[in-house]
Amino acid sequence: MPEPITDFYAVIPAGGIGSRLWPLSRADAPKFLHDLTGSGQTLLRDTWDRLEPLAGPDRIAVVTGRAHRAAVEKQLPGIPDKNVFLESEPRDSAAAIGLAAAVLSKREPDVIIGSFAADHVIRVPHLFDWAVRQAVATAREGYICTIGIQPSEASVGFGYIKKGAEFVVDGAPEAALVQNFVEKPDLETARTYFADRSYLWNAGMFISRADVLLGEIAENQPHLYAGLMDLADAWDDRDKRGPVVDRVWPSITKIAIDYAVAEPAAAKGRLAVIPGHFDWDDVGDFASLAKLNSHGRKNDLAILGENARILSDAASGIVVSQTNRVISLIGVRDIIVVDTEDALLVTTSEHAQRVKGVVDALKLTGRGDVL
Amino acid sequence: MPEPITDFYAVIPAGGIGSRLWPLSRADAPKFLHDLTGSGQTLLRDTWDRLEPLAGPDRIAVVTGRAHRAAVEKQLPGIPDKNVFLESEPRDSAAAIGLAAAVLSKREPDVIIGSFAADHVIRVPHLFDWAVRQAVATAREGYICTIGIQPSEASVGFGYIKKGAEFVVDGAPEAALVQNFVEKPDLETARTYFADRSYLWNAGMFISRADVLLGEIAENQPHLYAGLMDLADAWDDRDKRGPVVDRVWPSITKIAIDYAVAEPAAAKGRLAVIPGHFDWDDVGDFASLAKLNSHGRKNDLAILGENARILSDAASGIVVSQTNRVISLIGVRDIIVVDTEDALLVTTSEHAQRVKGVVDALKLTGRGDVL
Repeated sequence: MPEPITDFYAVIPAGGIGSRLWPLSRADAPKFLHDLTGSGQTLLRDTWDRLEPLAGPDRIAVVTGRAHRAAVEKQLPGIPDKNVFLESEPRDSAAAIGLAAAVLSKREPDVIIGSFAADHVIRVPHLFDWAVRQAVATAREGYICTIGIQPSEASVGFGYIKKGAEFVVDGAPEAALVQNFVEKPDLETARTYFADRSYLWNAGMFISRADVLLGEIAENQPHLYAGLMDLADAWDDRDKRGPVVDRVWPSITKIAIDYAVAEPAAAKGRLAVIPGHFDWDDVGDFASLAKLNSHGRKNDLAILGENARILSDAASGIVVSQTNRVISLIGVRDIIVVDTEDALLVTTSEHAQRVKGVVDALKLTGRGDVL
Repeated sequence: MPEPITDFYAVIPAGGIGSRLWPLSRADAPKFLHDLTGSGQTLLRDTWDRLEPLAGPDRIAVVTGRAHRAAVEKQLPGIPDKNVFLESEPRDSAAAIGLAAAVLSKREPDVIIGSFAADHVIRVPHLFDWAVRQAVATAREGYICTIGIQPSEASVGFGYIKKGAEFVVDGAPEAALVQNFVEKPDLETARTYFADRSYLWNAGMFISRADVLLGEIAENQPHLYAGLMDLADAWDDRDKRGPVVDRVWPSITKIAIDYAVAEPAAAKGRLAVIPGHFDWDDVGDFASLAKLNSHGRKNDLAILGENARILSDAASGIVVSQTNRVISLIGVRDIIVVDTEDALLVTTSEHAQRVKGVVDALKLTGRGDVL
């Protein structure tokens, strides 16, 4: 295994409940705290394990909500205190990653940071490693760099990155400019993207010098930038941090990093992309979870849950068992059953996207106790 | 309301777990102890309430397993001790009804008994009442009499009774002989039966003089008859009953009353039938339960459970909730969801008959704790 990259810092934004995975994902047990692959450990821990060979154990930061501090530290017992960035409330990804960038840049002006979601599933780690190393080499040249996943099928579930001209960077033979971003396509368009190998899935991974990222935020979102600077000035001073966070954070601009950084940078020719050749999934809903766990075999019944007691007769889809109840499925195809102590979901892969609507309805009808 | 019939005794065999209704029906909570109609009371209590105007509260006997004694007496607090017939183990319907017939006949030689399952659903009680009164009038003439349900559709789920020649009985204008019994038909045959109004559903109701019923058993099943006589001789003697039951019951012939009495009697022209014009269902599986509770409307989601917390988005079928969990159903059609503390069933109306197979599999795989 190659050595960690000395000027690199990994940042894991660990936010987002994953409403489409209710009732598995909850406010107090968000998606990143679950084992969604049967690996025996949480997605957050999987993410840490992928990043440790790249950054080393002392150079991985996590940005998360105060409520999740204990759970995160339990998952990552080796994490140094200074690498845990706590948000008093969620303010979207530009603020979360920007905060880490601003503080780390103060501590170490030339640092290159890479941000990687805490709740994605990646297989074939050495290909991930190779893509990140190329991205870091590209970032060292002053680019903001993303990793776009080479599609394995014509998916309508992800946004796409259109790859532009390739260019020469030492250590990054696959570097190319990003031509533009494309929203989730319809099936016909997705098929043309898949045939044309220059469209990559947007996996929301961004690697750049911290100061370059902050410069882009300064240009596009000056209010956000000012807030981040105030926070960074006070962050490492025990007496100052609290009051400044209380003053600045609640009114900091709430915007996704895609809009605050990636799209404007792409328009200005400052965004590079490295194609990722590894298996990747953001596990956006139970249909993807079923697919992920049945290894693509359509008639499999995937089972998630350490103590699952399942009796299946001609059933396919996925069953997630968080209780010790016997679950019997007969003749149901593409079914999704999620069995938890206080809530049960039954739907099909076709309707997996509608789970979010249930969560909204539960809020509206005063049944938030199960969210 | 007319008066109770003075020479009539109602007998309710309350046995049978109802395996096709697992995990709702269990060894310790058989079908007759459930409210399957949302009436607010158990099927057993519903049965009692239907029979009380016909027999009076002191002339309804229940034949049940020892394990269910407490539950039965809780449901029927007014039942006299002498009317509770306890089986040490189930020996099928001829033994259960034969025991009641033999003991009641000893106590009251001219008594007419009528046996009615504890776990059927009947609507329009005054039409049931009228059919029973006709059947009792017919039985008083020496016939064994059944009540056949006038079909409301071409069902393949029930056995049929072919009505033969009508005959004149005072108080029973609809009496006819039974020509023969027919097993559950295929759909095409069921359609011809439905068009031909002389085919009635076999609802397993038998009304006759106790001595006539016993005479039929004596002719067809002499070993069973001998056992019943031994039991009846000892039954009302506190000292003798126990030893005789222990000796006789375990080896008494295990046979359904249909084979021991009804079919042979029909063949000999001794079986009469009264058509029943009331709604009837034996609620054999969850598909019938769904239909029963959705009142025939195909796109309804029927909900059973006092504390059900259901959130449905384009779902139809039935959900039975015995817990206080939130149950969310999205886009699932004709679904059957049965949610209990220790077991969950998910299937569809189409596969409802296969539930019994699950029960068998649970036995075989050592998971009898949830049966």
